[in-house]
Amino acid sequence: MISKLPNVTDSIFTIMSRLSQEHGAINLAQGFPNFSVDPILKDLHIKAIQEDKNQYAPMAGLLSLRAAISNMTQQQHKAFYNPENEICLTAGATQAIYCAIQTVVHPGDEVIIFTPAYDCYEPAIQLAGGKTISIPMTLPDFTIDWQEVKDKITSRTKMIMINTPHNPSGNVLSHQDMLILEEIVVTNNLVLLSDEVYEHIIYDGIQHRSAARYRGLLERSFITGSFGKTFHVTGWKMGYCLAPRHLMEEFYKIHQYMVFCVSHPVQDAMAHYLQKPERYLDLGKFYQRKRGLFLNLIQESKFTFKPAQGSYFQLLDYSAITDEGDFDFARRLTIEHKIASIPISVFMNGADPKILRFCFAKKDEDIIAAAKILNSL
Amino acid sequence: MISKLPNVTDSIFTIMSRLSQEHGAINLAQGFPNFSVDPILKDLHIKAIQEDKNQYAPMAGLLSLRAAISNMTQQQHKAFYNPENEICLTAGATQAIYCAIQTVVHPGDEVIIFTPAYDCYEPAIQLAGGKTISIPMTLPDFTIDWQEVKDKITSRTKMIMINTPHNPSGNVLSHQDMLILEEIVVTNNLVLLSDEVYEHIIYDGIQHRSAARYRGLLERSFITGSFGKTFHVTGWKMGYCLAPRHLMEEFYKIHQYMVFCVSHPVQDAMAHYLQKPERYLDLGKFYQRKRGLFLNLIQESKFTFKPAQGSYFQLLDYSAITDEGDFDFARRLTIEHKIASIPISVFMNGADPKILRFCFAKKDEDIIAAAKILNSL
Ligand SMILES: CSCCC(=O)C(=O)O
Ligand SMILES: CSCCC(=O)C(=O)O
Repeated sequence: MISKLPNVTDSIFTIMSRLSQEHGAINLAQGFPNFSVDPILKDLHIKAIQEDKNQYAPMAGLLSLRAAISNMTQQQHKAFYNPENEICLTAGATQAIYCAIQTVVHPGDEVIIFTPAYDCYEPAIQLAGGKTISIPMTLPDFTIDWQEVKDKITSRTKMIMINTPHNPSGNVLSHQDMLILEEIVVTNNLVLLSDEVYEHIIYDGIQHRSAARYRGLLERSFITGSFGKTFHVTGWKMGYCLAPRHLMEEFYKIHQYMVFCVSHPVQDAMAHYLQKPERYLDLGKFYQRKRGLFLNLIQESKFTFKPAQGSYFQLLDYSAITDEGDFDFARRLTIEHKIASIPISVFMNGADPKILRFCFAKKDEDIIAAAKILNSL
Repeated sequence: MISKLPNVTDSIFTIMSRLSQEHGAINLAQGFPNFSVDPILKDLHIKAIQEDKNQYAPMAGLLSLRAAISNMTQQQHKAFYNPENEICLTAGATQAIYCAIQTVVHPGDEVIIFTPAYDCYEPAIQLAGGKTISIPMTLPDFTIDWQEVKDKITSRTKMIMINTPHNPSGNVLSHQDMLILEEIVVTNNLVLLSDEVYEHIIYDGIQHRSAARYRGLLERSFITGSFGKTFHVTGWKMGYCLAPRHLMEEFYKIHQYMVFCVSHPVQDAMAHYLQKPERYLDLGKFYQRKRGLFLNLIQESKFTFKPAQGSYFQLLDYSAITDEGDFDFARRLTIEHKIASIPISVFMNGADPKILRFCFAKKDEDIIAAAKILNSL
């Protein structure tokens, strides 16, 4: 059989988590928390199971949960999404992204992404018959060169994808960035796919500028979110997608045949859990403490860094330690020193920035143990 | 935005379930049980949540569950699938089907399906750029005309899709059918996608002939299964796909970017629950009693039928009652008589067979109440 994705292997998350397990390393590679979920959320999930909410949910999701998401979005971004026809629950944000790409991209369409980029973007574009136009972010600060974006737009450009807060750099797009983006998207009549799964994980009083806040973008954007990321339950696979009606209508058509619907008991639990906004509003504070713990401890190490503005990832530049490539160094760090991380070159078409990504959504004891090792290098 | 699926509207399941709810009807339309799940399975799910199995599962699924599926398949079909690289857990069988189609079908490829066909097949083929070649089953017995299949094969034919036991007719492909299919698939070097979600729901001692039982097919097939269907938890969205390594390798690549992985606690529960084979082996007996209850009660009605051989659906011919089209009659039956069913013409490119599909995976009291109404027509 002819491969649709001849160059794809196991994802770097699978590779590094497996290596981490094999060598008993502390897994700061794959982005998931290793501490326990809020018992209240567990109880809500359990209650839904016990109350027999165990059959199909509606295709787009439980209306109660869509209403709760609509409220959250209104309070956070002053943007209104109609629960009836502008919100869809998905099997994690990954499925939301895949489905949005399938919805928008026709064969031959060009999609602009910024690298390093989360690894599912490019294959999803390829599978839809589209062409990925990768624009490398400007290092060392991982900023976007908007002039280059303008230069790369052609008559085939259909969509731009952004990710803010950004994985892996943690960067948050500024109001200024978003205004330029809005102008580009509107002028060229593009669609925006804005991956905002870390929207609530943001530090130092920096503001998350959702695409939903900009009228020109709001009307042209798919926005993806993740309860897995927000509520520490990546294994429950619950994400969502927001879009104005004319876009969501098309998204629904594909979602309906891709998964039909997603977990009923999880949705029921989330609908109740979202009723207390502090549960997501306090998330920045929660992770800022963990970031602080990690960065304070490695202050004196040979690693250099700029503190992440958002997300639960921290990039560390190791060029003062070795000039190995990041994949080799990440492997060695896992096998010899028992800390797994993610080499970011895999998201950068093979660039070699001597930077590793560390996930600090971990128990304090693991952060402390990891820092100790990093200090010793 | 140009629609990828311009002719698609809400699925018939959404339409009929909504109508059913609006009119307080008994919902024999959408295929899901309305009785409670085995408390043991609920407890296993709850235990997994409490034990903090709440973060990402491996991409292909928990190895314990893949091993359990491998065992089940070996016992049932004498076919060995390697848990390491020939089994994938999916977000319901729908996602397995979508992903298999995405994996196999390149633009311009032709895929043969038999109508009436489950509604996700054709759009998934279309989204992959393929062309659906629909072969209507021969009525009244919903059999496949294999000569027509041979006649429809061209140099562009890539795949054949079957569904046994068949939704909506309940028919089970015979050993003879499978042998002819095997010869066709092997001779023309095709891929088979065998949707076997009702594999354990089969009656009157009839044998399920899985594609896995035929060497020529085994080597060329994706087979999909559903724990939602088998264990009465359609809302947990847990399905799976089996394929030989060279096919599964390509499936994994796409699955990895479509959803990455599926629910960890549900998988953990299923891995334990599968340890007792009687839990799926007794399913035929369980539903055969419900089918018997339903059919005995409507024996004297104006509806005519051939008892379903498998699945939890029963077709009823209503031509002695009215010559309305099936969609109109199904609507009227829901609104005026408070029984929702599925008009099967929607799966048949608009043919008009005067047949409705009724799901009997319902509480006895609902089956009894529904039969009473059907008798009165
Ligand atoms: C889907 S596994 C990867 C999790 C994640 O978001 C990350 O580590 O970047
Ligand atoms: C995904 S909703 C449809 C359920 C089903 O399998 C059916 O009713 O045929």
